[in-house]
Amino acid sequence: MENIGFIGLGIMGSPMAGHLLDAGYSVITTDHRSPPPADLVDKGLKTVTGNAAVAQAADIIITMVPDTPQVDEVLFGEDGVASGLSKGKLVIDMSSISPIATKTFAQKINALGCDYLDAPVSGGEVGAKAASLTIMVGGEENAFERARPVFEKMGKNITLVGPNSVGQTTKVANQIVVALTIEAVAEALVFASKAGADPARVRQALMGGLAASRILEVHGERMIRRTFDPGFRIELHQKDLNLALEGARSLGVSLPNTSTAQQLFNSCAANGGAKEDHSALVRALERMAGHDVA
Amino acid sequence: MENIGFIGLGIMGSPMAGHLLDAGYSVITTDHRSPPPADLVDKGLKTVTGNAAVAQAADIIITMVPDTPQVDEVLFGEDGVASGLSKGKLVIDMSSISPIATKTFAQKINALGCDYLDAPVSGGEVGAKAASLTIMVGGEENAFERARPVFEKMGKNITLVGPNSVGQTTKVANQIVVALTIEAVAEALVFASKAGADPARVRQALMGGLAASRILEVHGERMIRRTFDPGFRIELHQKDLNLALEGARSLGVSLPNTSTAQQLFNSCAANGGAKEDHSALVRALERMAGHDVA
Repeated sequence: MENIGFIGLGIMGSPMAGHLLDAGYSVITTDHRSPPPADLVDKGLKTVTGNAAVAQAADIIITMVPDTPQVDEVLFGEDGVASGLSKGKLVIDMSSISPIATKTFAQKINALGCDYLDAPVSGGEVGAKAASLTIMVGGEENAFERARPVFEKMGKNITLVGPNSVGQTTKVANQIVVALTIEAVAEALVFASKAGADPARVRQALMGGLAASRILEVHGERMIRRTFDPGFRIELHQKDLNLALEGARSLGVSLPNTSTAQQLFNSCAANGGAKEDHSALVRALERMAGHDVA
Repeated sequence: MENIGFIGLGIMGSPMAGHLLDAGYSVITTDHRSPPPADLVDKGLKTVTGNAAVAQAADIIITMVPDTPQVDEVLFGEDGVASGLSKGKLVIDMSSISPIATKTFAQKINALGCDYLDAPVSGGEVGAKAASLTIMVGGEENAFERARPVFEKMGKNITLVGPNSVGQTTKVANQIVVALTIEAVAEALVFASKAGADPARVRQALMGGLAASRILEVHGERMIRRTFDPGFRIELHQKDLNLALEGARSLGVSLPNTSTAQQLFNSCAANGGAKEDHSALVRALERMAGHDVA
């Protein structure tokens, strides 16, 4: 079993690293920013000081941090992972970040004689805890096969989608579909409710047909029951749609409804909802209609 | 068993009436516009001349015609159903038409001592043939219970959603969700494909998570395989989104993404695609990006 370095033991990273420890992997992190989570230390988590030291001690280095600048800092900043790498190691970024920056990161890691995989996940905290994450991977086939046993401890639907950056592109595509399906359900429920229909019965009727989706089931119910605790926070979905809209501009693609969905999230954030679940997007349409779904 | 009058034996109405004949119902139609389908005559379909004569001969009168003006004409035009009704009969409009006009139609039928149900369907020609239609019903409970055995010969998911017009409102809500989910999948696949990802692998990866829907499965595949034979024609979905946008204006609701989806359908129609499947909405985004998904 290869030694795993794990940088970023937050809400997602902690349970993911926990599964690796449970499976018998040696897992190493850095204590230079914060002390490691006690429950992981109890499971055998080891610590060194600094990202370079993690890279020296591990065969495979996983990063799971908030956004593109943090990955850049962890990998290429002062005392970064890159400065501790030696030939043959594998860097796996499981954060959700820019596909464009990812191409550069991969090239810089490859230039050191190491492999790079972009492997963002979906499924959230629930999926991380249940080891049922969807993992969308970009990179070379042999690096993917090397990482597969590690991925299998953390997720269920594990797909090599294409070369480096395509994992991140797929995650962005996922977040487009999720946001726009939430927006679709929200438009339908606000319309139906203001027309005098019972939104719960409408949702039930729609679940039987072509409109059926996991979003209609889960997020539609949250809109009706007014349970907007995250789940997945609007401010995180804003970050993901920003990646989509930045990417659209640089690629030359028009994403009209993604653009509108971002404006509706912006309206939610402006009204104090940045930390609510993304299903609370419905509130922006409710304000526009002067009418709540339920 | 009650006698059924059936007006509108087109692509949807013919197989629906066929199921009623197969179940042993006496079914009557009018020959004043066109001769009745031969296969239904073989099954025992009877004919009279004129809509009023159908209403006189039947206990339950079903209409299945293209749009609001046709329902108005069949019910209240010269020699219309209304002029042949007597107390205690039941009129069921299974067309997909304006919820607002439906309220008026129901009131006028009620004033004649008859019940009215709005009962639009989803599931298309395939669902009509397989007797697996989703039926969304607006009206009184007792009228619904009277109609239920008839509905059960034609559909599977049969829901009384609320009072008159709410069946049509639910159908509009359904068409909003379907159009916007198609649009969501189209934005995601155009983005991913232009970024260099294989759209088939992206679709596969997304099917495992929160982005999963029947639309991603069925229409996503059509976009990738370029199979745009209907299915459900863009010109029909334009009609349905028009009902949504008209309704939004009169109710006071903002439907930003429904509005954009209609513009994309308009672009498809302008480029000769009015009779293609609604999954061909992707072509409008492809033209904007100068890049096809596959």
